Amino acid sequence: MFEAAELGHVIDKKTFKEEVTRLRADLLEAQFELREKGDFPVIILISGVDGAGKSETIHDLYDWMDPRYLSTQTFTDPSDEESERPFMWRYWRALPPKGWIYVFSGSWYSLPIARRISGEIDQAFFDQRIDQFNRFEAMLANEGALVLKFWFHLSREGQKKRLRSLEKDPRTAWRVTKESWERLKTYGQLQEVASHLLRMTNTPWAPWIVVEGTDDRYRSLTVGKMVLEALQQRLAGQRERHYPVAPPITHKIDTLDVLTALDLTQRIEKPKYELRLARAQGRLSELARSPEFKKKHSLALAFEGQDAAGKGGSIRRLVAALDTRQYQIVPVAAPTEEERAQPYLWRFWRHIPRNGRITIFDRTWYGRVLVERVEGFCSEADWLRAYAEINDFEHELSADGVIIVKFWLQISKEEQLRRFKEREQIAFKRYKITDEDWRNREKWDAYHQAVCDMVDRTSTGAAPWTLIEAEDKNFARVKVLETVCDRLEEVLRAENPAMAAGTGGTQAAEPAPENLRTPRKTARAGEKKDGARQDP
Amino acid sequence: MFEAAELGHVIDKKTFKEEVTRLRADLLEAQFELREKGDFPVIILISGVDGAGKSETIHDLYDWMDPRYLSTQTFTDPSDEESERPFMWRYWRALPPKGWIYVFSGSWYSLPIARRISGEIDQAFFDQRIDQFNRFEAMLANEGALVLKFWFHLSREGQKKRLRSLEKDPRTAWRVTKESWERLKTYGQLQEVASHLLRMTNTPWAPWIVVEGTDDRYRSLTVGKMVLEALQQRLAGQRERHYPVAPPITHKIDTLDVLTALDLTQRIEKPKYELRLARAQGRLSELARSPEFKKKHSLALAFEGQDAAGKGGSIRRLVAALDTRQYQIVPVAAPTEEERAQPYLWRFWRHIPRNGRITIFDRTWYGRVLVERVEGFCSEADWLRAYAEINDFEHELSADGVIIVKFWLQISKEEQLRRFKEREQIAFKRYKITDEDWRNREKWDAYHQAVCDMVDRTSTGAAPWTLIEAEDKNFARVKVLETVCDRLEEVLRAENPAMAAGTGGTQAAEPAPENLRTPRKTARAGEKKDGARQDP
Repeated sequence: MFEAAELGHVIDKKTFKEEVTRLRADLLEAQFELREKGDFPVIILISGVDGAGKSETIHDLYDWMDPRYLSTQTFTDPSDEESERPFMWRYWRALPPKGWIYVFSGSWYSLPIARRISGEIDQAFFDQRIDQFNRFEAMLANEGALVLKFWFHLSREGQKKRLRSLEKDPRTAWRVTKESWERLKTYGQLQEVASHLLRMTNTPWAPWIVVEGTDDRYRSLTVGKMVLEALQQRLAGQRERHYPVAPPITHKIDTLDVLTALDLTQRIEKPKYELRLARAQGRLSELARSPEFKKKHSLALAFEGQDAAGKGGSIRRLVAALDTRQYQIVPVAAPTEEERAQPYLWRFWRHIPRNGRITIFDRTWYGRVLVERVEGFCSEADWLRAYAEINDFEHELSADGVIIVKFWLQISKEEQLRRFKEREQIAFKRYKITDEDWRNREKWDAYHQAVCDMVDRTSTGAAPWTLIEAEDKNFARVKVLETVCDRLEEVLRAENPAMAAGTGGTQAAEPAPENLRTPRKTARAGEKKDGARQDP
Repeated sequence: MFEAAELGHVIDKKTFKEEVTRLRADLLEAQFELREKGDFPVIILISGVDGAGKSETIHDLYDWMDPRYLSTQTFTDPSDEESERPFMWRYWRALPPKGWIYVFSGSWYSLPIARRISGEIDQAFFDQRIDQFNRFEAMLANEGALVLKFWFHLSREGQKKRLRSLEKDPRTAWRVTKESWERLKTYGQLQEVASHLLRMTNTPWAPWIVVEGTDDRYRSLTVGKMVLEALQQRLAGQRERHYPVAPPITHKIDTLDVLTALDLTQRIEKPKYELRLARAQGRLSELARSPEFKKKHSLALAFEGQDAAGKGGSIRRLVAALDTRQYQIVPVAAPTEEERAQPYLWRFWRHIPRNGRITIFDRTWYGRVLVERVEGFCSEADWLRAYAEINDFEHELSADGVIIVKFWLQISKEEQLRRFKEREQIAFKRYKITDEDWRNREKWDAYHQAVCDMVDRTSTGAAPWTLIEAEDKNFARVKVLETVCDRLEEVLRAENPAMAAGTGGTQAAEPAPENLRTPRKTARAGEKKDGARQDP
């Protein structure tokens, strides 16, 4: 894998100077065009062995391009805001908007590599990460990002020589630390881990470019030219989409599907409703305050449903049981300008709750396979690949302790009409009905099919769909609340068998041991969650 | 001050129910109109003594309005990302966008009150904070925000009674902690501190509303009605601007001003230029790596100047001395949608660097008193008040350890023309010249006056302007770099007299003791900076 990077490439000063003059003008030109068009972001990963010239090369790239539209992302210890969220959150938040070039000095690869070498994670977990990264990069590529991954290589002798020469020069000596020399001892392990990693993540959509790091001029020039070539190709419109397009959705044989199978006649009458609602609210209030939840988990609730199906009312009954300081409702409407400059899922990632917190999405990332599909707001290829991307997204959250509960609220076409008319009559409900609602209603059947496909493809073990028979509002509200409680209890009890007896009653049995007003500091990086599964 | 809130107001259940029915419909209506218009944000501060029903009232507000467009902001221990930035940063980042209502449970007032009671800050510092908050709230009001500040009061006996009754109810018992009882002991001190604070921050633009907290129904209803009334008034267009409008800019008597006084003939020829540039870059590199800088400071560089004055070139020479991972260049163009929904300075606050980091603004917050003034993009009242707001902003940064260096790069009208023409000739510089540049040129004199006024009004001790004679690029670049170095040294040496001898040479005398690749964890809240001056 690294043989071609130990050949001893050298570029003389004169050639370098000539080449750079041209390269610089071309890079500036390409960068300018990128900014003008502004329709894709560029992600450059600079990785490899210590002393192979990573920071020198980044410096040269800055020198050759307009540094105002470059940014270097670096990742050291996660901040506490990062360490209480899924592994990939900090990388999502560091993604470039369209039109920008971000250089990643260190990336999602760094920690798993370091932890694999130190033995903190095993090969199986390492391979899971690899798979995750491949999917992540495929998503980036499919969203239009240009992803360039460079691996700087040095032979063992070459590394020793580089470190020595850096140490000699007073201007660079500070960059060589005890750690650098220590890492030389694990040279063999790094090569082993890296060659496996490079092989496994050498995808068509984001291939690795291995660069010999011995000669400064050769190394920088190689990277600069590669960047230029890739930029020019993309600007010229050469873009391939790299994902297996899903087979077309099958046609229905009969009228039975997950929605028509629902028994919409289910009702709960008033006295019973009030009792069950209060009981469920009590349970939820207690579960959300429990240390078992607050320490290792957060909760993401996804609400989808037809217009007027009662999402708002259900959410209202649910949050009535919570401390307003613990949750956030995210009403999902059209994306903002900053959100449109990022991959589709970015605007949901930014709301992922910290430990102990709850985010309630009123409409969700499923917009892509519902409204965007039905209305044609995105291409078929885009919504077809969304199913897998969403499953990956939810899997990542769930693996990190985010408990996901997803609801589809279903009403009949007649009931919707009744509610629309009712809304038009009541003063403070008028605002809930718009022309768009009437237009959506005309596409009832298309939405029906989209929902069936969605449930079919995204109801996973980690994040199953719960279909709510919402014809009767009371029934819907109780079922939503009880489902959330059941799911929370299920997860928490599985982890804390001792908890089993204490919860589930109507009354708060014991006051929670902590005070919500001054939430205690939650666990930090290293300690948090299932340590063995984390690369904090 | 609190007498009117100890009268024993009580509302019976029936009256409450009737009132709430109407109130709820009206609040929903008003909230809907707010969202539709979307032209101002609402900030509701809920403060006061423990047990006076703060969270109950917030709960009621959620119950009466659409919770999807409400959000509760709460502030406990600052995260590490917060504690390494100025005091107000976390409140800026929590501000609502236009069209939204955010409830602040705890606010900028909470920590200073607590620390004044505990004696950690003295009266003078407390009063400085008060002054700062008044200016901050005036800015919010002037930016259009509706700011409502509620203070919930209880008599000493009343508080004791409330805590007991909360403790008795198993549903609320968890909310009463040891701390609650301990705070009862400092009741007298709280009253003293609070009555001073309320008096001093009872401004026309953001007055306090003191509410008796004894009776749940009375308290919630009062707040609900006040919110409704204020909302309705603002929606009906009643908005007063509260700031002393600055006197009109004086006319000039002769042609001498800070710009015409500059000697634009100053030059540095090549060999000398290269030497001085390299020397300054060496100094900067060293200073930016020094532990004295990284521990307590960050650096904000502001670049303004005419088109083609050479800002980009100066920035390029400057960052050549820095590790790309340490700085961020922020090119300031038109604000994004999310930025337009916030007060003017919000988009600069979001880029304020953490400890040890550097942000370089290519064009800045001075846009308001330059381009926005000249082009008429904002009202005269808006740019007139901007001078004071900007001074406050820079003062806050500077007081917290952010070192601010501001540059105006000045060239002659003839030199600009020469550079414009040159840019049109050179391939990779073509993108630097646009029609807008030519249009701006026609307003040369208006800009000239705006710059003089700006320097006049915003060159402060904490953040002085440095005017750069930029007719000769070499001279400009060297002066920019040397100014940054001088300023950094001045600040660091004043704090670390021992440092005086070690720095300032052309060569890096000693390798820095830490490795940039794994920056050490910087100081946390309590320890950081001038402890006595902080309310972390």
